[in-house]
Amino acid sequence: MAATTDRQSQVEDELVRTVLASFDSTPDPRLKQLMQALVRHLHAFLREVRLTEAEWQQAIDFLTATGHITTGNRQEFILLSDVLGASMQTINLNHEAAADVTEATVVGPFFVDGSPEIPLGGDMAFGAPGEPCWVEGSVTDPDGNPVPGARLEVWEADEDGLYDVQYGDGHTAGRAHLYTDDQGSYSFWGLTPTPYPIPHDGPVGRLLDSTGRSPMRASHLHFMAVAPGLRTLVTHIFVEGDQLLDSDAVFGVKESLVKQFERQAAGIPTPDGRDLSGRSWSRVRFDIVLRPQSSPLRSA
Amino acid sequence: MAATTDRQSQVEDELVRTVLASFDSTPDPRLKQLMQALVRHLHAFLREVRLTEAEWQQAIDFLTATGHITTGNRQEFILLSDVLGASMQTINLNHEAAADVTEATVVGPFFVDGSPEIPLGGDMAFGAPGEPCWVEGSVTDPDGNPVPGARLEVWEADEDGLYDVQYGDGHTAGRAHLYTDDQGSYSFWGLTPTPYPIPHDGPVGRLLDSTGRSPMRASHLHFMAVAPGLRTLVTHIFVEGDQLLDSDAVFGVKESLVKQFERQAAGIPTPDGRDLSGRSWSRVRFDIVLRPQSSPLRSA
Ligand SMILES: [Fe+2]
Ligand SMILES: [Fe+2]
Repeated sequence: MAATTDRQSQVEDELVRTVLASFDSTPDPRLKQLMQALVRHLHAFLREVRLTEAEWQQAIDFLTATGHITTGNRQEFILLSDVLGASMQTINLNHEAAADVTEATVVGPFFVDGSPEIPLGGDMAFGAPGEPCWVEGSVTDPDGNPVPGARLEVWEADEDGLYDVQYGDGHTAGRAHLYTDDQGSYSFWGLTPTPYPIPHDGPVGRLLDSTGRSPMRASHLHFMAVAPGLRTLVTHIFVEGDQLLDSDAVFGVKESLVKQFERQAAGIPTPDGRDLSGRSWSRVRFDIVLRPQSSPLRSA
Repeated sequence: MAATTDRQSQVEDELVRTVLASFDSTPDPRLKQLMQALVRHLHAFLREVRLTEAEWQQAIDFLTATGHITTGNRQEFILLSDVLGASMQTINLNHEAAADVTEATVVGPFFVDGSPEIPLGGDMAFGAPGEPCWVEGSVTDPDGNPVPGARLEVWEADEDGLYDVQYGDGHTAGRAHLYTDDQGSYSFWGLTPTPYPIPHDGPVGRLLDSTGRSPMRASHLHFMAVAPGLRTLVTHIFVEGDQLLDSDAVFGVKESLVKQFERQAAGIPTPDGRDLSGRSWSRVRFDIVLRPQSSPLRSA
């Protein structure tokens, strides 16, 4: 029995060596590194779990279904990467932790190029249903110098948990861009974030279901901050007290990004005098610190 | 700097722990094991190579293209698994090495259910172009007992490197099934195997190209042997002396499966008296040993 096991182990080792060697002539050294590391980790996985042929076939079928549901408007492979934490780990690897700059999180599948511009204090909801939320803050570098003219892209789901691209009628709402003023400050009206499920009517949804996981994302508002000489930051802010902070389906929550959204009863005057016709509202502050383009932290 | 690196490492570790924990409530213990092992190996890969965001996007695009080219007739994910050696490793894991039984190899994408039956000594080429090849052998169990009535499925490419399903006109050629006789013996006419490329006009072909790898498979003839009480075997036989034995694109070659195809000049009488109209031919012997359905080797 021991002899069989030794021989078996040799056969498995030998195959890994042969596959690794097949990539030895890859002209690009980085591609060679990536493929050989992929082969090592993939084969280590297969051997550890002793994958059965039926399971291999299920994996092929799962990937095929994931490919077939993916279109220009629906990216199921990104969802898969998200729910395995691979998207968030990639963010971690490329935006190394540092105490003095704002942390990054996942982009998610709902960013769209070409959002409408709004003035400072403008409304990015464009009629999307939900409770109004006053958002204000500043953009600075790690030394506290204000960054005037920084471009902020902001986007979020409405109170029904839908982004405009999910409405299906092509109209834009719940997304905009604006620029910081001479003091690096910004403000706009958005919506108080509410939880929503990631699209879960496809293979990734079935995976979550069969593993007892929820498709719900913690409530959040997306930001992308772009300024010359500073590193572009993609992040969210989350809502303090949200029940879903510990079970976000895509592992996007970071403690430093959880903010206090102060609830304001109907009738409390708004910062800019806007008349909310008797509705309640909320307010939040988010000060953004961008790191220099080539920060020494990056290569640490 | 050391402090930053420590903190960074903690952030990455913490994410892996969180993702692993998200699968803790998976009802099926095997699925839980598979998902948690996948997460560990996937994150180990990402962290080892420090995957960039651009590379992550390339991976998403690659998987998307692989999904979009996959149809009922074209399975690019199986090709991907094949060229990474994952298909062959899965075969290894499920058909453990043993000196006394015939080794298994990859199924490949060209097996089709419902092949025509031929009698012993019949011709499975059905007009597919190529040099005739007389194939004979026996099917036994590990104790040498003959297995009468074993079903053999055989399929192969023609001399142009094409399987019938690639002709595009729906006609069947180069595939058949037959049954061993009372002594467990079989014989049939096929074609002398010739090399062919795996389909390489898609994402997997581009991967092979950019890594300096050839899409060529070593010449082979496919077998599937099915008999009651014995384990179904899927394998190939390869051609001794073939230049491609050491660089098979899908890593399917095993030394024990390389057979001597004896070249026969035109005019040499055939075993069954068939008149080959002045063509050369070849002959090969392949004795198949099937293991019992529940072999102790399996659980070794
Ligand atoms: Fe979102
Ligand atoms: Fe083949």
